[in-house]
Amino acid sequence: MRTVAAVIGGGVCDQETTLLAEKVGEQLAERGVVLVCGGLGGVMEAAARGAKRAGGTTVGILPGFSAQEANPYIDIPIVTGLSHARNAIVVRSAKVVIALPGEYGTLSEIALALKMRIPVIALNAWYSQEGVIHAKTPEEAIQKALKSIPGLADGNR
Amino acid sequence: MRTVAAVIGGGVCDQETTLLAEKVGEQLAERGVVLVCGGLGGVMEAAARGAKRAGGTTVGILPGFSAQEANPYIDIPIVTGLSHARNAIVVRSAKVVIALPGEYGTLSEIALALKMRIPVIALNAWYSQEGVIHAKTPEEAIQKALKSIPGLADGNR
Amino acid sequence: MRTVAAVIGGGVCDQETTLLAEKVGEQLAERGVVLVCGGLGGVMEAAARGAKRAGGTTVGILPGFSAQEANPYIDIPIVTGLSHARNAIVVRSAKVVIALPGEYGTLSEIALALKMRIPVIALNAWYSQEGVIHAKTPEEAIQKALKSIPGLADGNR
Amino acid sequence: MRTVAAVIGGGVCDQETTLLAEKVGEQLAERGVVLVCGGLGGVMEAAARGAKRAGGTTVGILPGFSAQEANPYIDIPIVTGLSHARNAIVVRSAKVVIALPGEYGTLSEIALALKMRIPVIALNAWYSQEGVIHAKTPEEAIQKALKSIPGLADGNR
Repeated sequence: MRTVAAVIGGGVCDQETTLLAEKVGEQLAERGVVLVCGGLGGVMEAAARGAKRAGGTTVGILPGFSAQEANPYIDIPIVTGLSHARNAIVVRSAKVVIALPGEYGTLSEIALALKMRIPVIALNAWYSQEGVIHAKTPEEAIQKALKSIPGLADGNR
Repeated sequence: MRTVAAVIGGGVCDQETTLLAEKVGEQLAERGVVLVCGGLGGVMEAAARGAKRAGGTTVGILPGFSAQEANPYIDIPIVTGLSHARNAIVVRSAKVVIALPGEYGTLSEIALALKMRIPVIALNAWYSQEGVIHAKTPEEAIQKALKSIPGLADGNR
Repeated sequence: MRTVAAVIGGGVCDQETTLLAEKVGEQLAERGVVLVCGGLGGVMEAAARGAKRAGGTTVGILPGFSAQEANPYIDIPIVTGLSHARNAIVVRSAKVVIALPGEYGTLSEIALALKMRIPVIALNAWYSQEGVIHAKTPEEAIQKALKSIPGLADGNR
Repeated sequence: MRTVAAVIGGGVCDQETTLLAEKVGEQLAERGVVLVCGGLGGVMEAAARGAKRAGGTTVGILPGFSAQEANPYIDIPIVTGLSHARNAIVVRSAKVVIALPGEYGTLSEIALALKMRIPVIALNAWYSQEGVIHAKTPEEAIQKALKSIPGLADGNR
């Protein structure tokens, strides 16, 4: 079984966040970790693009009814038809969640992850949210993500 | 069709919050509004108890597999088997959400409601959460809830 | 807590099935049982109309994003946003399921109910489906439904 | 994006069905198709084992709360926490569904797939179920699956 991490964040994002998300995706892929995300645009797309650049595997847990809504960097579309209720699946499937800037959808995922006791690494964002672990660079986020779960370092169990 | 409002908050709560939740439930029932909640203990139970005291109707959107997990003040148990993903249904079914103190589960419901553009009235809680409407008393919460949606005042559409 | 039964069947139906569904809804309501259904047209609407005629309570577990999609006889709309995955909630919320003629959606509900060991009474339909209990009239269906669960007769536990 | 097919069937199965499921998994993998299944035992495990034997990728859409419930041949565990409601995701994620012998859970998936207009190839089973396409050998099932959707032959779009 592969190790799975989720990257979450806004469906629209600025250039700085795009670069951060790409780096996070890239570094997860370099460690053999499968990237799960919501499958749409913004942070989800940037993280998936970064992961593919490094030869990784990407899964999009889509809210709608068609694989066609996935961004172009998703290898495996999971088509839920559950709308926002799919957020629970994004985080539950992950050993660790890396949260970039986002809005209410992202906040719901952070809250659900914390409720499920899944560690959340907040990268350059969510400073006032208690319960998350903060990081300022993709490297720091990945390092803290690796530390938060046993076995993530090698991408396998 | 009856008007439906959700009351959300911790599954365990202190005496002060219990009293607030009971009052909110009571006052919703007095206005003919159906109370939807997560169906378990703490704020959910107190709000349902208040609603029943005033002769209202209570619905519990349960996370598990049996109606037996509902608190004793739930008239209609909706048994989802969806665990935390049921939080999306609690708020989506409501015209307005009244949030009392709680933890990550409650935060996920607030975030989902705001994402769905359903108004959230925070009663004596969630002061640092942007996007919610604050109230200090049950009366103020009910008044602001009534104002936030057309037609709530009479409990019918 | 009220006793809940589900009535399932096609979203479009003929005159004969409409009359059967109305009678089933009516007789459940007369026994104090809450009617849960999918909230849309056809059998769901006819059963709810029958229940309201007898002063009962009706709940629609809606697949979409708005209470407005409920038929006019639904008291309490539960807005799931889950599309067909809501079928699992319709049957899981019921102590017994009464199935009228329908198509694949109805078949999925019958199968899910049987998987969950919830009794399914098939009224004038589903003759080749093993595992269901057959009835030829609404009266027979109600009688067999009552027998299938303890405590349904009085609509309370 | 990879092409995804679902293999469904009983959580426990006999030797003959095990061999059929393995062959189906193997042949999907040989064509570059990602195997999605419910992630547990019986047909799900046999199909995943066959797919891994041929170097394929396997996804398990799990009903429970932990990746640990996946069978040993699942690469990517999607942890839904939705119990039987996850059946809707298994089939919705697939371009085609191949159904082996099973019981009510499998029947619910067949019905949901047909409702969603996803083609269902029934292999050595489900002879009385209308709407499915029948096949007697894994080869015939794969061939009919390939025909049922454009682009499956090469496993990519």
